[in-house]
Amino acid sequence: MLLETVESKGLAHLSYVLGDDNQGMCIVIDPRRDVSIYLDIARRNNCRITHIFETHIHADFVSGARELAAQSGAQIVGGVSDAYGFELHQAQDGETFSLGQLTIKVLATPGHTPEHISLLVSGGKGSHKPWAVFTGDTLFAGEVGRPDLLGAGSEQALARSLFHSLHDVLFQLGDEVEIYPAHGSGSPCGGSIGDRLTSTIGYERLNLPKAQIKDEDEFMSTVLADLPPAPLYYPRMKKINAQGATVLGCMRNLPPLDADRFDEARREGNTQIVDTREIEAFGGAHISGALNIALREEFPVWSGWMLRPDQKLLLVLTDEGDLDAVQRHLLRIGIENVVGFLRHGMRGWIEAGKPFETLPQTSVHTLKRQLDSGSGLKVLDVRQDGEWKAGHIQGATHIFVPELVEAPLPFAADEPVAVYCGSGYRASIAASVLQARGFQNVSTVPGSIKAWKGAGYELTKDGA
Amino acid sequence: MLLETVESKGLAHLSYVLGDDNQGMCIVIDPRRDVSIYLDIARRNNCRITHIFETHIHADFVSGARELAAQSGAQIVGGVSDAYGFELHQAQDGETFSLGQLTIKVLATPGHTPEHISLLVSGGKGSHKPWAVFTGDTLFAGEVGRPDLLGAGSEQALARSLFHSLHDVLFQLGDEVEIYPAHGSGSPCGGSIGDRLTSTIGYERLNLPKAQIKDEDEFMSTVLADLPPAPLYYPRMKKINAQGATVLGCMRNLPPLDADRFDEARREGNTQIVDTREIEAFGGAHISGALNIALREEFPVWSGWMLRPDQKLLLVLTDEGDLDAVQRHLLRIGIENVVGFLRHGMRGWIEAGKPFETLPQTSVHTLKRQLDSGSGLKVLDVRQDGEWKAGHIQGATHIFVPELVEAPLPFAADEPVAVYCGSGYRASIAASVLQARGFQNVSTVPGSIKAWKGAGYELTKDGA
Amino acid sequence: MLLETVESKGLAHLSYVLGDDNQGMCIVIDPRRDVSIYLDIARRNNCRITHIFETHIHADFVSGARELAAQSGAQIVGGVSDAYGFELHQAQDGETFSLGQLTIKVLATPGHTPEHISLLVSGGKGSHKPWAVFTGDTLFAGEVGRPDLLGAGSEQALARSLFHSLHDVLFQLGDEVEIYPAHGSGSPCGGSIGDRLTSTIGYERLNLPKAQIKDEDEFMSTVLADLPPAPLYYPRMKKINAQGATVLGCMRNLPPLDADRFDEARREGNTQIVDTREIEAFGGAHISGALNIALREEFPVWSGWMLRPDQKLLLVLTDEGDLDAVQRHLLRIGIENVVGFLRHGMRGWIEAGKPFETLPQTSVHTLKRQLDSGSGLKVLDVRQDGEWKAGHIQGATHIFVPELVEAPLPFAADEPVAVYCGSGYRASIAASVLQARGFQNVSTVPGSIKAWKGAGYELTKDGA
Amino acid sequence: MLLETVESKGLAHLSYVLGDDNQGMCIVIDPRRDVSIYLDIARRNNCRITHIFETHIHADFVSGARELAAQSGAQIVGGVSDAYGFELHQAQDGETFSLGQLTIKVLATPGHTPEHISLLVSGGKGSHKPWAVFTGDTLFAGEVGRPDLLGAGSEQALARSLFHSLHDVLFQLGDEVEIYPAHGSGSPCGGSIGDRLTSTIGYERLNLPKAQIKDEDEFMSTVLADLPPAPLYYPRMKKINAQGATVLGCMRNLPPLDADRFDEARREGNTQIVDTREIEAFGGAHISGALNIALREEFPVWSGWMLRPDQKLLLVLTDEGDLDAVQRHLLRIGIENVVGFLRHGMRGWIEAGKPFETLPQTSVHTLKRQLDSGSGLKVLDVRQDGEWKAGHIQGATHIFVPELVEAPLPFAADEPVAVYCGSGYRASIAASVLQARGFQNVSTVPGSIKAWKGAGYELTKDGA
Repeated sequence: MLLETVESKGLAHLSYVLGDDNQGMCIVIDPRRDVSIYLDIARRNNCRITHIFETHIHADFVSGARELAAQSGAQIVGGVSDAYGFELHQAQDGETFSLGQLTIKVLATPGHTPEHISLLVSGGKGSHKPWAVFTGDTLFAGEVGRPDLLGAGSEQALARSLFHSLHDVLFQLGDEVEIYPAHGSGSPCGGSIGDRLTSTIGYERLNLPKAQIKDEDEFMSTVLADLPPAPLYYPRMKKINAQGATVLGCMRNLPPLDADRFDEARREGNTQIVDTREIEAFGGAHISGALNIALREEFPVWSGWMLRPDQKLLLVLTDEGDLDAVQRHLLRIGIENVVGFLRHGMRGWIEAGKPFETLPQTSVHTLKRQLDSGSGLKVLDVRQDGEWKAGHIQGATHIFVPELVEAPLPFAADEPVAVYCGSGYRASIAASVLQARGFQNVSTVPGSIKAWKGAGYELTKDGA
Repeated sequence: MLLETVESKGLAHLSYVLGDDNQGMCIVIDPRRDVSIYLDIARRNNCRITHIFETHIHADFVSGARELAAQSGAQIVGGVSDAYGFELHQAQDGETFSLGQLTIKVLATPGHTPEHISLLVSGGKGSHKPWAVFTGDTLFAGEVGRPDLLGAGSEQALARSLFHSLHDVLFQLGDEVEIYPAHGSGSPCGGSIGDRLTSTIGYERLNLPKAQIKDEDEFMSTVLADLPPAPLYYPRMKKINAQGATVLGCMRNLPPLDADRFDEARREGNTQIVDTREIEAFGGAHISGALNIALREEFPVWSGWMLRPDQKLLLVLTDEGDLDAVQRHLLRIGIENVVGFLRHGMRGWIEAGKPFETLPQTSVHTLKRQLDSGSGLKVLDVRQDGEWKAGHIQGATHIFVPELVEAPLPFAADEPVAVYCGSGYRASIAASVLQARGFQNVSTVPGSIKAWKGAGYELTKDGA
Repeated sequence: MLLETVESKGLAHLSYVLGDDNQGMCIVIDPRRDVSIYLDIARRNNCRITHIFETHIHADFVSGARELAAQSGAQIVGGVSDAYGFELHQAQDGETFSLGQLTIKVLATPGHTPEHISLLVSGGKGSHKPWAVFTGDTLFAGEVGRPDLLGAGSEQALARSLFHSLHDVLFQLGDEVEIYPAHGSGSPCGGSIGDRLTSTIGYERLNLPKAQIKDEDEFMSTVLADLPPAPLYYPRMKKINAQGATVLGCMRNLPPLDADRFDEARREGNTQIVDTREIEAFGGAHISGALNIALREEFPVWSGWMLRPDQKLLLVLTDEGDLDAVQRHLLRIGIENVVGFLRHGMRGWIEAGKPFETLPQTSVHTLKRQLDSGSGLKVLDVRQDGEWKAGHIQGATHIFVPELVEAPLPFAADEPVAVYCGSGYRASIAASVLQARGFQNVSTVPGSIKAWKGAGYELTKDGA
Repeated sequence: MLLETVESKGLAHLSYVLGDDNQGMCIVIDPRRDVSIYLDIARRNNCRITHIFETHIHADFVSGARELAAQSGAQIVGGVSDAYGFELHQAQDGETFSLGQLTIKVLATPGHTPEHISLLVSGGKGSHKPWAVFTGDTLFAGEVGRPDLLGAGSEQALARSLFHSLHDVLFQLGDEVEIYPAHGSGSPCGGSIGDRLTSTIGYERLNLPKAQIKDEDEFMSTVLADLPPAPLYYPRMKKINAQGATVLGCMRNLPPLDADRFDEARREGNTQIVDTREIEAFGGAHISGALNIALREEFPVWSGWMLRPDQKLLLVLTDEGDLDAVQRHLLRIGIENVVGFLRHGMRGWIEAGKPFETLPQTSVHTLKRQLDSGSGLKVLDVRQDGEWKAGHIQGATHIFVPELVEAPLPFAADEPVAVYCGSGYRASIAASVLQARGFQNVSTVPGSIKAWKGAGYELTKDGA
């Protein structure tokens, strides 16, 4: 039997290749945009891809279903919905698909979205009874899917559907059935997903706190309470996926731009420099106006929050070897308009004699000293509302990162401002936005709350 | 959380890296001999390996525990046993180990072997209750571990222990707990393991046929009945693992030998040529005396059955690129005495004007015609006893492959003999043995029973 | 400085990336069809490709110039010719191009073709004087380019041009100048190219036998004498390259076809099975009608000779991992119409119970015995004319491989025929053609003349 | 024919695999310490390594000859010298070695060292006359080897030998012979090596300025004039290579150390933190006492200058993926005592709440303004003497980087000092040394002289 999990870090997205490798056929569930990995797995296992299942219309990334269908000739299968603007097979609740010795049964499990389906799998040597369910965004390890992301007043009805999908459908499958969800820890598609990639029906039925609420209304109010903000780019993803994403073919070749060409390109209208180096490197020296979104797990999510698909992007990389990863991450969230990257990175820029800016790095120890000494330093907390409420630095002001782009700011451009978040990552995004808006005296706090706690300093909930 | 499965195909062996990657520590469970993959996984996840767990003294491969300990500095942990001839921590039933946010609890689960332990895991975000058990060779997907491999009259007592380990220990953990076993389908460590790599306690408790037997004696007689033969190399592996395998360091560099050097080397005493090409290629042309064990999944198991660690081995490869895989496979079963490989393979040999032999390939259609026409062709079935009994070709003689090496044969050396097995793989091993023993008129039946059935011909159980 | 040689084995084709990596710009000279390697080299060296130079309109492979231009935005530069059917810069003799600190000077060097140019390079630290010339197919290590490939009566004029290009242009550059040609040993673009990849002007001026001929007419008659046959696919390549090859984008994904699908596909009209396994494996078992062109260095050249671009091709591979190499080789010679590959290769076919054929392998020793004993065996030599004349097996008949496809044959279909060539490679192609034409009693001689000589047997020139 | 160049960037070191791949044998010339690449090339080409040639006792890296001999069984060959403290074949001037169709002739070419040999190659298809000479450190593209590195008063005699090796030996080989040297541009083994990797005898005979000096004494005084300083670690390398480096086997596995373990380890005696991140990142935040040697081409040379083999090293990396490259670079210069690397790099350190330092980055524009305004800023030029003399910033003080470790400094510890070099790389090494010595007010000038010139500012030679 073939069962491989393809994890896209950053999006905390899980897709799957499931097949009967004795009979040479497989399916792909919830593929991401850059699809070569699925073709490689199929080839390596001597399988052809017969179907591509979309558990639902995704909101957090651009689906690779149409790309993969174009390259493999496989049939796309989804739930029933008028929203689909492209050709696919809309499977009914209870419909089954044969895959060699395996049987895939479609279960309608609305809740996260109305058209959501789960896939129940049985068959294979020693496994006649159902043994796994691919739950998409309905049920994760330790969390349920969010029913609020569609907006437009659909939250209540979807939350109610979710209650029934859990109790009347999924929890009826048997405690012994394994769960393969579409997301792991860190995805905003669930409130607080656990850090395992799989679970079982029994484990969630018995241990998932929201599953212990047997009253439908209480469940609804609980799942709709205290949710982190829905990323601003979700409606855009949703729309692309409903209409069907463009088929791309190969990854585009991007040229290195020397300092002069880069300098010229950045002066064109509607152009944004994205500096993907680590925050300390950005702090040491960067180009005026650059946005610092470091290439780590969080990169695609924060690129989704901060970048617009119509902008022309110019990249500053740690190393030209990072280009492929950066391009893929952006592609997965529908950002395709990259113009080029700076040749030899900041080193190339600086050695050409071009001017640069720094972003001072304030350690938590220095911050503490300055706050204790009443230095007049302003402190800005750029985390989500829930994090702020759970405890912050005394005296800080709270504005969530993406709001900094356009919101009026409670500081003067020449006031000293130290920006912090959970670990320093978002603080550097935020500080780079502030610098671009003309703040001349902004610093970032690397380590932020993690370092603050590590150093043994106190947090407060005052004024939260 | 870090949980990566390392599958060693051929041995159908599963080992695991489990860790708390937030806190940078991990363990390795049941490592194989070539350990660089574990070090790479640990490094990539910024973890150091703190412990290496051996669920039991393995009989089917050489453990990499000591190699990995030497390279990583980690502590080896096993069950309690006098059999261990090297330094390790012998963990008591119920002993726990902390691994960042995870807790590993040792459960004594004798049955496959007396010192066998399982590892119950709890902890991690959203997973406070136990969520997984690493069952080693006690319980697989769809099968239990064999209690007969230790021999020496221990079968009965171990089978009884196994009954209690299942019902009193593992099945008490909760239906929702996931099972991560040490073997998948194809391993002789279980009678007939299913083709999933994972399962759950509930799935096996409810569906595993042997688990439905609630009478202890009936269970014992069932698990000891109808077992496939224990590979002859198992006692050798067991002994190496009990004493602790030698630490190897790097893989040894092996030179290409040109036809003349190879020819010279094969004439030295106690030297065996192993031809790892596919059976059709071996059929087309091979060196006299060569044993054909094709490099596919089955390679390590059949190398274990057919090769002796004291022999000097000479390799004939499809391509020099196969050398690494062949070396690793042999290392894993304790075969280290490889002298070199034939430069440019058979092509190099033949172009030097050296003589070669062929092994005629008889199709099932030709075989059928010859049998129907009463041609006097002898037919030899070289499968295991259980396969033979389940149905064979009318008129065939049955001798299991490894017995051909020394057993007296019921054919004259000049009689025409067609050899078959399940798919042709073992038939080619067997036929190469017969040719080496001087049979001049032997042919192999590629496809064998698979092709015979595919062509729609009948099998019989007569005389089985 | 950046100077990387990209060697395409099989075609014995050499292409180059040359650049000033301090200033971040490079050119590509004579790119092959699958161009990702050039983009990777440029990226790794932080260079952008500014120009793509075609030394001439190639006849032996499909140029990647247009593909690379499409993916990199670089300008294509060639010599002056009306033959070009696409947009490119046609550079005059003496025209120069700046590439950072390097200067590229175009030299008209007609001979192999009329529009042929060479590129003289000077510049770089410590290298102000010209230090290298990229000679395309004008001058190789140990050989000159063939002036006969264009046909149509152009041989005489081109041979004369070649004489002047050598003596009046290239040999005037200075003995110290390094030569980087477009082909190495084995390419039919030169009569008998040496086995170094580079040389120097002085080395060839002093040592190349044809360069020692100072009489123009004697030179012309010598370079036009005793040339191996021009591959039949050369005019097709030439035409594609003159018109400009289609831009492909990504490599196409090809599916594994199980035995039934493959069987069905092979029965469609205008379909050819190509079996790329080694000759012994083909000998052991193959599908009726399959052509055996083994995947080795010779593969692209013999695919060029034996396959037609309008045929639908079905592949039988040693291993699905060979697919990429086979696809690339075919692409480079303009064969794009591959339908799919046989799942699990011959093993998959045979295990499905499908019929197969064998191609007996006759060793040179057996051949010798049979010839000596006057067995009536027919012997067929399928090498080129020049090889045949240099010495062959007594009593053999000579027909060059490609002629076997349609020529009337001097044997009856049931006569025993043993086929040989230089090493057995072409013999297996030829024998597979004969089997497809209905010859029932054909065998191949692996090792062929190499083995015959290795075994110490005699050759004759009688009747040559 | 097999001829592959293995380039070790940073050391600008060139080693070669040369062989007759038809006959399956090859040699390796001047191997580096991490030898797996040579074994891989040999295997891929179906060759065994018969000999390892050392052109001389290297001073700039640890030779891999003994390692490769241990792993391949090949024979080591060098020139004649009493200095060798291990077993090797000491070849006489004129001695020849057969390598299939190739012939290797040893030429005594003293000059860089007394025992230096060059290897003249002839043979191969179309190449009967000598076609290449492997010149080691005698003659490079555009430069001759330095005769001063051995010190101890040997310079004069070696310079004289070099004159004769050039004119009486190498230049007699013929202008058409290709040169394959042991170093490319950037190696301190030659004064100013050109940026090609190969050259020809004719090119150097005609164009190399020092080759134009026909007077022996003038030649001697010229080659001994104006040489850059010999790296301090050269005598150590020389000694290791004369005695024969230890055989290592595998690369050692190194663990990630979390912030607490790293913090503990750095407090042990004789321990040095090496921070291999780019200079801007080091500037943004680093651990107190760390030395910044960024992982780029220059890394091994500056590690050689700045590190001692008896020190225990702790690494701070950009990414754990850099570990392999850092380990290899250090191994090549005989630095083996690495203890571990910081888990998650600076991010891990900072998030644990540990204190960090910054190194302010002064742009050339700011520097210019401050100098013009008479701010009292001290400026330190840390380049080599020759660079300083060729032009520096007005008012700067000159101390070459390695001297900063122990020399008395002309600044007070609280004075503001801006450090520059050619590009900022060495300035950051120097500034990190100054910080470690207690200078509290030091900054670095990224881009340094390159940026200064790029910005259009003036240099002076005053006071040089």
